[in-house]
Amino acid sequence: VTEHRLLAELRQAVGPAHVLTEAGQVEGYVVDWTRRYRGEAVAVVRPGDTAEVAAVVRACRAAAVALVPQGGNTGLVGGSVPRGGASAPPEGQVVLSTRRLDRLEPVDVAAAQVTAGAGVTLEALQGHARAAGLQVGLDLAARGSATVGGIAATNAGGERVLRYGVARAQVVGLEVVLADGTVVRRLSGLVKDNVGYDLAGLVVGSEGTLGVITAARLRLFPDPPSRAAALVGVASVGAAIDVLAALRTRLGGLEVAELMERTGLDLVRAHLALGQPLAGDHPAYLLVEAAGSTDQATALAEALAEVAAGGALDAVVAEGPGERARLWRYRDAHTEAIATLGIPLKLDVAVPLAVLPAFLDEVSELVAARPGVRAIAFGHLAEGNLHVNLLGVADADADQTTGEVLGLVAAHGGSISAEHGLGVAKAPWLALGRSAADVAALRAVKGALDPTATLNPGVIFPEP
Amino acid sequence: VTEHRLLAELRQAVGPAHVLTEAGQVEGYVVDWTRRYRGEAVAVVRPGDTAEVAAVVRACRAAAVALVPQGGNTGLVGGSVPRGGASAPPEGQVVLSTRRLDRLEPVDVAAAQVTAGAGVTLEALQGHARAAGLQVGLDLAARGSATVGGIAATNAGGERVLRYGVARAQVVGLEVVLADGTVVRRLSGLVKDNVGYDLAGLVVGSEGTLGVITAARLRLFPDPPSRAAALVGVASVGAAIDVLAALRTRLGGLEVAELMERTGLDLVRAHLALGQPLAGDHPAYLLVEAAGSTDQATALAEALAEVAAGGALDAVVAEGPGERARLWRYRDAHTEAIATLGIPLKLDVAVPLAVLPAFLDEVSELVAARPGVRAIAFGHLAEGNLHVNLLGVADADADQTTGEVLGLVAAHGGSISAEHGLGVAKAPWLALGRSAADVAALRAVKGALDPTATLNPGVIFPEP
Repeated sequence: VTEHRLLAELRQAVGPAHVLTEAGQVEGYVVDWTRRYRGEAVAVVRPGDTAEVAAVVRACRAAAVALVPQGGNTGLVGGSVPRGGASAPPEGQVVLSTRRLDRLEPVDVAAAQVTAGAGVTLEALQGHARAAGLQVGLDLAARGSATVGGIAATNAGGERVLRYGVARAQVVGLEVVLADGTVVRRLSGLVKDNVGYDLAGLVVGSEGTLGVITAARLRLFPDPPSRAAALVGVASVGAAIDVLAALRTRLGGLEVAELMERTGLDLVRAHLALGQPLAGDHPAYLLVEAAGSTDQATALAEALAEVAAGGALDAVVAEGPGERARLWRYRDAHTEAIATLGIPLKLDVAVPLAVLPAFLDEVSELVAARPGVRAIAFGHLAEGNLHVNLLGVADADADQTTGEVLGLVAAHGGSISAEHGLGVAKAPWLALGRSAADVAALRAVKGALDPTATLNPGVIFPEP
Repeated sequence: VTEHRLLAELRQAVGPAHVLTEAGQVEGYVVDWTRRYRGEAVAVVRPGDTAEVAAVVRACRAAAVALVPQGGNTGLVGGSVPRGGASAPPEGQVVLSTRRLDRLEPVDVAAAQVTAGAGVTLEALQGHARAAGLQVGLDLAARGSATVGGIAATNAGGERVLRYGVARAQVVGLEVVLADGTVVRRLSGLVKDNVGYDLAGLVVGSEGTLGVITAARLRLFPDPPSRAAALVGVASVGAAIDVLAALRTRLGGLEVAELMERTGLDLVRAHLALGQPLAGDHPAYLLVEAAGSTDQATALAEALAEVAAGGALDAVVAEGPGERARLWRYRDAHTEAIATLGIPLKLDVAVPLAVLPAFLDEVSELVAARPGVRAIAFGHLAEGNLHVNLLGVADADADQTTGEVLGLVAAHGGSISAEHGLGVAKAPWLALGRSAADVAALRAVKGALDPTATLNPGVIFPEP
């Protein structure tokens, strides 16, 4: 009866056509794209504006039904689909899809900002900015599906953080429906604004647990006319860090610094039947890209020559889009090439650069002690952000192995979730990533803003 | 008796020498530098480390005595001194001075970051960074006294926000003592870190109401070798905005864009007996400064020539430190020159650039309706951040006038406190700056993290 009344209220709120309940309709919303997370939903609702979102939130709260906000459903930690099994909230779950909130306002060229609905895809936003002669600072592989709301809710990172920062650095305003159904709107995009706490910054990265983001205002950036990439072979991860440090002081426009290891590169070569990218074979590879108003290919080549300082640095510089794409294939195909060997245990972590080589050595030791297990790490070097892929870990040993690797991360003062968030996947390890005092403060904030635990229960905070 | 016991506990916590109670000793801590705000303190305590801060916080909370955190005491809104008169908390107030927390860790050159105690002055931090070949992104006139803790607690801005952002953009880690005396420490400085809510970002700008900041980790920046400034005369504030927009697309290294009006410039000229800075007399002036690896004087001159596009732009470019200082005097002496005419009502606001000329026109109308009142505005143009100085406002009319000006700001979607914070001075107008839903959320956060209202009561939130 309660469920029946809730459905009636939801239909009233968003129109019957936008309350999906049939299995075929809801399938794409209740399972995540890794297919590892799945749950059941009372309904999937697709509100068309902020007032409708607020009505949905109020209805769910009144019915004591959990609400799971969902953008492009491209997350990797199970935070955007209903909880499954024993974790499913007893009174049921409603998925709120933001995809219909796809309004794009005109680009404010003078302020270099734009306001976009939560359901706008990153790709659509990028095209919109480009048409106004500007660019979005953020980019990631899921750009075709990932939405502005999801990017803000998860504080997404990606490959260009080195230059433009994470999502939090680019969000200059938010519209959010809070758990009580009230709407907080702050979209002026003022850079200086010290009127009370930064609620928007708090909601960014809160993974749908503090409010439903309905719109965001984002900084945009000039699109530099010259762009070049280089692939550099180095003797170790430590050497890659040194080369990056030297390049950073020489190249103001450095945007990307991706680390690869020989094992990963060899896998990609075998998978795509690609040749060796450089003259020699190297234990580690650094892919960098720079953009600016002056000729970047020349700047990169000169900087690399200076870094080599008379020694021999095995490197290649690529200028045009085709040449650059050729280098990027070695990096982009890592996930795909790894998947050919089985389903990896993926851990997205960051450690300070000073201890990154030591951390990788410790991961190697941990893996060496487990027969049949191998590790392939790659990632965003400037932030010490590694995607550690462990192959051959038995299901029964997955939690133990995860705990050990994350324990190493924590011991080095690192982050147990650099850019993917905790979701439900890493919530059990929250205490490894934050101190008891810290967790108590986070729980107090959650309790203050969502006392009924309506919004995305089970995400960030471990189940009792 | 209670007070006696509290004093004993404070002496136990920080040592008797660091609990000040005599009038002569406490004077510098209980009155702010505008001399407008003053209150009485049970004691001024000067803890020497984080554990001592925690002990002080616990003692005050147990005694139901309010705690007022204080850094360099250079704030302009009364937030760092005890509340006075009817606003004084009934059980008394303790000032916690962070000045002894002055530890500076070595600069992490590879990460371009440094960790500093809350009591380190901005000037000391700037010198420390410079010695390592880097620079602090933030600068403001009170650099000799303003502290790292105060800068973080108030989310300070200043003149270089255009390039480096506000304090929140530069703080990559905090150590904070929460109201319950627990310590939250996150100083790894990881750029990508998505493990639960951004507590540090929430505490930055919370003006001492959510925790006592004991240390901060800050981003540092390369110090470009070439630097140049230019003063440009324009026909209107709107024209200044257009010139700035055109310069921003041409100069990657633009750091400063200060707006002045003829009235302010004339006051400064009379006060310092300075000549006219440009060939002609102009309604508005724009002072810009750029820094980079290439010759900035040439770049600025070329950009200005392009902006003028054949027309005549009355401008002068200054290169060496002496020449630049000569131009900066016109801007820096504004506060001093205005003070010769009386004590101004100072309002620190921001409005979107698109409506800034209209806002200034409305302020002029508001002033014209008040005989004997005049307005002089200047500020940081890129952020639409104006310091509106009203002269000749009677004390009895100050609140009414403040409310009217802030009302205009709010009507334009602006910020009623751009960089100074609300403190106690602007707390009564919080509802003009944030919606009712927004204020309710802020109060919920405050209540969750400081349920006994121990930390800086009366700041940000208006008295009931």
